[in-house]
Amino acid sequence: MNPPHANLPHVSPVDASTMPELRARLDGKAKPLGALGRIEDLAVQLGLIANGSPPSFDRALLLVFAGDHGLNQEGVSSYPSSVTQAMVATFLAGKAAANAFAQAVGAQLRVVDAGVDGDLPAHPALLDEKVRRGTRNAAAEAALSREETVKALEVGARIARDAAGEGFEILALGEMGIGNSASAALIMHRLAPAPLEDCVGRGAGHDDAGLARKLATLQRAAARSVATDPLDVLTEFGGLEIAMMSGAIIGAASAGLPVLVDGFITSAAALAAIRLVPAVEGYCVFCHRSAEQGHQRMLQALQAEPLLALDLRLGEGTGALLALPLARAASRLLNQVASLDDVLSGRL
Amino acid sequence: MNPPHANLPHVSPVDASTMPELRARLDGKAKPLGALGRIEDLAVQLGLIANGSPPSFDRALLLVFAGDHGLNQEGVSSYPSSVTQAMVATFLAGKAAANAFAQAVGAQLRVVDAGVDGDLPAHPALLDEKVRRGTRNAAAEAALSREETVKALEVGARIARDAAGEGFEILALGEMGIGNSASAALIMHRLAPAPLEDCVGRGAGHDDAGLARKLATLQRAAARSVATDPLDVLTEFGGLEIAMMSGAIIGAASAGLPVLVDGFITSAAALAAIRLVPAVEGYCVFCHRSAEQGHQRMLQALQAEPLLALDLRLGEGTGALLALPLARAASRLLNQVASLDDVLSGRL
Repeated sequence: MNPPHANLPHVSPVDASTMPELRARLDGKAKPLGALGRIEDLAVQLGLIANGSPPSFDRALLLVFAGDHGLNQEGVSSYPSSVTQAMVATFLAGKAAANAFAQAVGAQLRVVDAGVDGDLPAHPALLDEKVRRGTRNAAAEAALSREETVKALEVGARIARDAAGEGFEILALGEMGIGNSASAALIMHRLAPAPLEDCVGRGAGHDDAGLARKLATLQRAAARSVATDPLDVLTEFGGLEIAMMSGAIIGAASAGLPVLVDGFITSAAALAAIRLVPAVEGYCVFCHRSAEQGHQRMLQALQAEPLLALDLRLGEGTGALLALPLARAASRLLNQVASLDDVLSGRL
Repeated sequence: MNPPHANLPHVSPVDASTMPELRARLDGKAKPLGALGRIEDLAVQLGLIANGSPPSFDRALLLVFAGDHGLNQEGVSSYPSSVTQAMVATFLAGKAAANAFAQAVGAQLRVVDAGVDGDLPAHPALLDEKVRRGTRNAAAEAALSREETVKALEVGARIARDAAGEGFEILALGEMGIGNSASAALIMHRLAPAPLEDCVGRGAGHDDAGLARKLATLQRAAARSVATDPLDVLTEFGGLEIAMMSGAIIGAASAGLPVLVDGFITSAAALAAIRLVPAVEGYCVFCHRSAEQGHQRMLQALQAEPLLALDLRLGEGTGALLALPLARAASRLLNQVASLDDVLSGRL
């Protein structure tokens, strides 16, 4: 790696040696063996993260990281970059899908301006952490300087650690950034790794011609650099919201918090975080298999089997939020449900 | 049908003519077209049920219907019937998986004694609606008298309508009854209809020998009667908790409430309810594809594609509860999320 290096907090890997104990606890519960399927697997993961009994996860925070992409000058999205800023205003007005879903599941929502190309008025739910106004055009030059990437990572880690310090028990991550499925595809291409064609999808709604244009643009961007180091890849291809999410995953893991990972773009941030700090993997809960082509293959590269498959392809953390109740159910299964022995002997 | 007939409340079919209006409302929201996938479909269904804007579904009730099965004398389950009563005590102590999940998603839980083979002490969360102490052995004789079946249906409808009157906005249904996957298999066999072998599964945990014994017993039960009328099928094969759930589905639909349908056994109750009163179909939200063999095929017969597939095979309403947050998210999507026009013009 070239200097500067990111100054990231230490992450302790989850201690897998306690897995048999957690499995035994679940096997002893008042239910047939394994009858709660994926919720039991999730309970084991959350128990490993908590190194024992996980909290209730009543205090949950969705962080929506927003940023713009110079690459969008090439038409990689069917929307103009100005939509990013309009959607940030929508989040702050409480009227986006992420707000609706956050309220439906009982999570707080904050927006992080990682790099929106515009001036955002101050708001109590907005964290102003703008590194720069949008990335550079990655088809022509590096999207970020190395200093900018490092800053995004470090800020993301700090935000997550601050949330843990405030008492949040679990973080959900989501994003808003017109064009960011293009950056995510380039990150996947280099870090999964996978052929670029397998990483590029329709994003927010390309037709065949738009998809072909997006692929051609990404081929130009990819041809510019041979980067495979995760920090270099984030620097070359952006985006700021993705790098900041990678940092947030590292920060959350360092504070012992599970992270609910949303769809394609958040998974790309998780992929970069895992390549930077492999120990974070055990803290990542992959929530939703996106309808975006490429997500399934990225999840395979991460050996991840998401909890939900609801044909969502919006981002914003919507898929992560819908998995939050599952984490709460898994935690209560471990902590609250009686053992079969107690049930059969009447000791309740 | 033979008399007596069940005196069931009238169900108005959902008015599908408003579907285009609901789709247009969703299409206008601040998101790419169709980007919330199954949640948009669910929003349409809930909008049709509400005939406009659905409520928040903050007030949700899980009803766990409990009953015993004379058929269990034949060893169709790997558990003794006494476990039903022990599990009812566990629900009332707040220590079953259904309690944990209900608290995780913010739903109340009540247990309905539809036909437990034992005397249950009074409890504020227990509805004493026992029709009889367990069904008769359906391998040897009809599980219920026609009067008993009719009573179970009518009581179930009343319970659901009372819940609507109390202000509950959505009902989740679940069950507890050792041996009840055997009754559910027989109901599916006659009402899907489907070959009996396709309807019989491992239930709470049969090995191959147990599964073969279960199938042989069900073949004897099936050979006793040629019933295909839904009321006759419930009478021949039971169980009381299943018939009472069928009644509850009809009652909920008559009161305009959506019903969250759990796994294999609750789906069998929904199948019987739909065959009795076809208009209830539009009110049923199929929540989870069970790991129990046969459920997939039953869902095909119902043309239902459940929201979740988490390898659950417990019942108790656990799968229905995990879909409740999705219903809340779908409702808020319709009611709370801004239109793209408003976002782009800054009118928030």
